[in-house]
Amino acid sequence: MPRYRLSIEYDGRRFCGWQRQAGDLSVQQLLEEAIARFSGESIVTQAAGRTDAGVHALGQVVHFDLERDWDPFKVREALNYHTKPHPVAILTADRVDESFEARFSAIARHYEYRILNRRARPGLDAGRVWHVPVPLDADAMHRAAQLILGKHDFTTFRAAECQAKSPDRTLDIFTVSRQAEMIVVTAKARSFLHSQVRSMVGSLKLVGDGKWRPSDFRAALDARDRSRCGPLAPPDGLYLTKVDY
Amino acid sequence: MPRYRLSIEYDGRRFCGWQRQAGDLSVQQLLEEAIARFSGESIVTQAAGRTDAGVHALGQVVHFDLERDWDPFKVREALNYHTKPHPVAILTADRVDESFEARFSAIARHYEYRILNRRARPGLDAGRVWHVPVPLDADAMHRAAQLILGKHDFTTFRAAECQAKSPDRTLDIFTVSRQAEMIVVTAKARSFLHSQVRSMVGSLKLVGDGKWRPSDFRAALDARDRSRCGPLAPPDGLYLTKVDY
Repeated sequence: MPRYRLSIEYDGRRFCGWQRQAGDLSVQQLLEEAIARFSGESIVTQAAGRTDAGVHALGQVVHFDLERDWDPFKVREALNYHTKPHPVAILTADRVDESFEARFSAIARHYEYRILNRRARPGLDAGRVWHVPVPLDADAMHRAAQLILGKHDFTTFRAAECQAKSPDRTLDIFTVSRQAEMIVVTAKARSFLHSQVRSMVGSLKLVGDGKWRPSDFRAALDARDRSRCGPLAPPDGLYLTKVDY
Repeated sequence: MPRYRLSIEYDGRRFCGWQRQAGDLSVQQLLEEAIARFSGESIVTQAAGRTDAGVHALGQVVHFDLERDWDPFKVREALNYHTKPHPVAILTADRVDESFEARFSAIARHYEYRILNRRARPGLDAGRVWHVPVPLDADAMHRAAQLILGKHDFTTFRAAECQAKSPDRTLDIFTVSRQAEMIVVTAKARSFLHSQVRSMVGSLKLVGDGKWRPSDFRAALDARDRSRCGPLAPPDGLYLTKVDY
């Protein structure tokens, strides 16, 4: 059966997350209904990252199979049409080999986390940044981030409901930089545990406001104890930016 | 009487524009009600730019007088509190000399106009960009923009309802550049006519999609004829970014 790969962008504020849930609209449900509307086929899609409610995507990757061989350009146009007026955009659609799996073929996921670090709340970016009104030391946050690069047991930074078999993950990139009032955190790994980025960013915030030293951040990781994690950062500032294959 | 100067940011989607209007909420009304709530004084504010409905501000400047001498930090905090939950942020508040006028002391206004130039509609930036799905030639648009720098009669690019006495304005900066899928137009002048930036951008779009040559853009200006203006660009992509004094 022909397999299709999509790259999609969405505004997490308006969905209960990627995954289907009874009662609330998920990106998955919206997309699968749009696919059914143009193709007449009821199928299940698979995504590279199961983003939570409120988490945004600039480059989520999805795959699905259809009986019929469609022109990928028509697939993209039809899906952009049938997902209206929801804040979702299908950026690309391609035919791919049936060995391709959006989730399991991925060799790296890239996330970005945006913190608006100023006294006044966001006038334009409400729901798209984490507003932290107290001054944060982005350099100290970056130094702390460098202390946990590599392969570790990330139990401390893993949500209780995480379903992964192993808490081991390898963090390839984890940087913090300030651009005027915006602090941007980037993270890259083959895969992440449930809420791992928000858990790490929530803990880094404690380094930024001086409650923790960078070494306390590393000690929290080494403790392998969820209770040592800082308060979870809100979904608002998190973006799945890219998936590598 | 003590005079105060504010720098403010707002999301134009949620207001009928800067100026008070019966029936709809304007930024001016929201701000004046917030001022009354903390100070007990009913005053009128003056802004550097009377942005239209849907137009955003990153650095609108406002001034007003109060009987009482308030700590400017408290003014900012009180206004950010009393404007909740509307998408407005008071970035700075300062005491200024009573010779300062937000509108008349300004020596330059800076605007930015953002065009999302790709096939797929915005997934995250709906209402914050002009979505143009056909490919635009940003270089040609930039060349055209350079042809109208300086002092001219801008009747062609002036809304019918414009109340300015003279159609003459001096355009100091007018650039078009592409950053991947985003085309950013910047404009700087001492002051602009009503809808001037949106009129110019709407006409530049005709250059970008090949309907006009750059010289047609200049010819439209020289005609001093509103009927020669291209379709008005929507307010969504327009930002008042900065005011110089």
